[in-house]
Amino acid sequence: VTAQSVRSVIVTPVAFPDPPLLNSAGVHQPWALRSIIEVVTADGLVGLGETYGDLPHLRLLEAAAAVLDGLDVFDLNGLQSRVAHAIGAADAPDRHGLTGPSSTAKVLARVVSPFEVALLDLQGQVTGRPVHALLGGKVRDRVPFSAYLFYKWAGHPGAEPDAWGAALDPAGIVTQAHTMIDRYGFESIKLKGGVLPPEEEIEAIRALRAAFPGLPLRLDPNTAWSVDTSVKVAEQTAGLLEYLEDPTGGLAGMAEVAALAAMPLATNMCVVAFADLPESVRRGSVGIVLADHHYWGGLRACVQLAAICRTWGLGLSMHSNSHLGISLAAMTHLAAATPNLTYAVDTHTPWQSGIDVVRDPLRITGGAATVPDTPGLGVQLDRDALARLHGNYLACGILERDDTAYRQRFEPGYTKRRPRW
Amino acid sequence: VTAQSVRSVIVTPVAFPDPPLLNSAGVHQPWALRSIIEVVTADGLVGLGETYGDLPHLRLLEAAAAVLDGLDVFDLNGLQSRVAHAIGAADAPDRHGLTGPSSTAKVLARVVSPFEVALLDLQGQVTGRPVHALLGGKVRDRVPFSAYLFYKWAGHPGAEPDAWGAALDPAGIVTQAHTMIDRYGFESIKLKGGVLPPEEEIEAIRALRAAFPGLPLRLDPNTAWSVDTSVKVAEQTAGLLEYLEDPTGGLAGMAEVAALAAMPLATNMCVVAFADLPESVRRGSVGIVLADHHYWGGLRACVQLAAICRTWGLGLSMHSNSHLGISLAAMTHLAAATPNLTYAVDTHTPWQSGIDVVRDPLRITGGAATVPDTPGLGVQLDRDALARLHGNYLACGILERDDTAYRQRFEPGYTKRRPRW
Repeated sequence: VTAQSVRSVIVTPVAFPDPPLLNSAGVHQPWALRSIIEVVTADGLVGLGETYGDLPHLRLLEAAAAVLDGLDVFDLNGLQSRVAHAIGAADAPDRHGLTGPSSTAKVLARVVSPFEVALLDLQGQVTGRPVHALLGGKVRDRVPFSAYLFYKWAGHPGAEPDAWGAALDPAGIVTQAHTMIDRYGFESIKLKGGVLPPEEEIEAIRALRAAFPGLPLRLDPNTAWSVDTSVKVAEQTAGLLEYLEDPTGGLAGMAEVAALAAMPLATNMCVVAFADLPESVRRGSVGIVLADHHYWGGLRACVQLAAICRTWGLGLSMHSNSHLGISLAAMTHLAAATPNLTYAVDTHTPWQSGIDVVRDPLRITGGAATVPDTPGLGVQLDRDALARLHGNYLACGILERDDTAYRQRFEPGYTKRRPRW
Repeated sequence: VTAQSVRSVIVTPVAFPDPPLLNSAGVHQPWALRSIIEVVTADGLVGLGETYGDLPHLRLLEAAAAVLDGLDVFDLNGLQSRVAHAIGAADAPDRHGLTGPSSTAKVLARVVSPFEVALLDLQGQVTGRPVHALLGGKVRDRVPFSAYLFYKWAGHPGAEPDAWGAALDPAGIVTQAHTMIDRYGFESIKLKGGVLPPEEEIEAIRALRAAFPGLPLRLDPNTAWSVDTSVKVAEQTAGLLEYLEDPTGGLAGMAEVAALAAMPLATNMCVVAFADLPESVRRGSVGIVLADHHYWGGLRACVQLAAICRTWGLGLSMHSNSHLGISLAAMTHLAAATPNLTYAVDTHTPWQSGIDVVRDPLRITGGAATVPDTPGLGVQLDRDALARLHGNYLACGILERDDTAYRQRFEPGYTKRRPRW
């Protein structure tokens, strides 16, 4: 055991308020769950990680945390093998259904990820280097993010409307975009679709184009559409969209759409693990992979994914779930060190209500975050906030994200159907 | 400029004696050329790299060395962009013809490589970690190497026979194998072919099988054969070879052979850069990629290549040219940290006559090298030896490797033909 090996690991589930954002699976619950990872070394340094907070995943994180004592902070392969051994073929299906059927490799990648980030944070502290330096060095000083628009209810049922208010038509979406862009300066726009009939979402895209003539637009219906519907939407949005994201489900369907669509297709649903890449490449299913270190297996795994995208001529950008400031920092370091990450990155930051577990979250201004050059991730845990957010977790009664069941409470006839149109 | 940034870079061409080893391009000249790289930081640490010594390449190394002042030892992306800028679209064709037509990306990868190794050596010294830790951590304590057999003349024409003596028939090859295995304990065997008619080389393989019934065998004719000949050799060596290496040239021809061969095909000639991978995967040209950090762009690039091989189900091993102890150490660290590098690695170490530029070369015993756990590469430059080997370089009169021209001196009718059979 050296001074720079793991002495203890703390996994803390937290919850923070989340607005009623609509998507093709239902609507966001009032609380978003995350797990905060602290990896403490023998000499008292603390490395941070952040990931999903759903109970089956939390249990696996705890099982992984229990086997890391004595691990050198540089031993990422050791992390992988220890965690693989600890969780065996344990399963923690993605019930939100974003990343398809579960597999041992996918579960392992998800469980390893926040610990890898925490170890890289520690490596950075030990070497006096920012995490981006450990990923090869930054190739940009600013990482651009995109405005992530959602159809939404005015507020959670039974509660006051939130400050964003309702967005259920093109005018509402344009208003939301103005608010978000005024506040953060985003220079590209993504609309989460799959909520209203496609023609209404196309109208929203047209309204955004009229309101923001210079900004790239993206539409993501989370596989709410059949192949035929996807092809029709692609026809009607040709020239309007920078890319169309996951219009339909599966590598075969995506390939059919891709062959006919004028714009590239992006995905965070049909290419979500290394094992998906060969078939996707063979079929030509997607033109852009939306990386996400939370499920690809960490930041180094995403660097490898980037090498694959570069090699096969695929575009690369980054997916986001509801998150806090540790994930934002990790995403920023990764994007900074990835030469071919050439699209603005998704982030849920604007939906976070200013709440965070870090004292010094990266700020998005002018549509971008300045890449930190301080050692490690460059963010510090706010222990009071962590305690409050853990209190939220204990009090909120949500143990697993379920957008569908939550929506059904208010619309008993609602079902999750993909494709719906 | 920090204490851990580059203050100066020294590039020293060296030459060391090389036996008359035969291959499909001719015969090794009496001196093998290498370039030794020293990267010195502001606080006086020295990082080591080693690569080709041919004059056009040496000139590019010098151009690269001139632009590294002030570079942080962790900034590998910065290394890449500085070197790309310095050498522009400069060309340094591989005249030995092992890795196909030149390209800007291939030249850049070759020039960057030894500096990347030197920076990783420095990162290891700075962090107190072996290079393998910076590549993700070792997954094995011992790296197996293979016995690399060559048809050879008894000695260079006009000189005394060397200690190995001639090997021009199956008996000579078996004797060479016994000597090499007695000395190093290798547990797999590679025969450099493409020298004698295929039926004679098949006889040598059969003789090796009889003499070493338990050891995996490989045959590498360096594309000396047509597709038809390759298919016939594959038929006659089915069950005898672990893999057949570069029987014929080009991704299309290799795919034809691969479709009919019982054993996997390996390559260090048709998949030599990331740009070769998509077509190779599409055609099914090879089953095993023989990585070589000297031309893939360094150790991190090979880690990315390994991720691609894992993703597409390709095997992975490692190619070798005549080299010294810095390259051996770099190869060993890479192999140690690469989980899917599952074949014994090629090395020319036995042909080095015990001469080295490092004071403490890794030793191969029991067929493997023990992975160093000391900081950095774990080898120290022997400055007296470096001076002697540089003296060799100045005296030997060889500025570029040319196996073909050297052979033609003694066999005026000799031509390099691929395929020859």
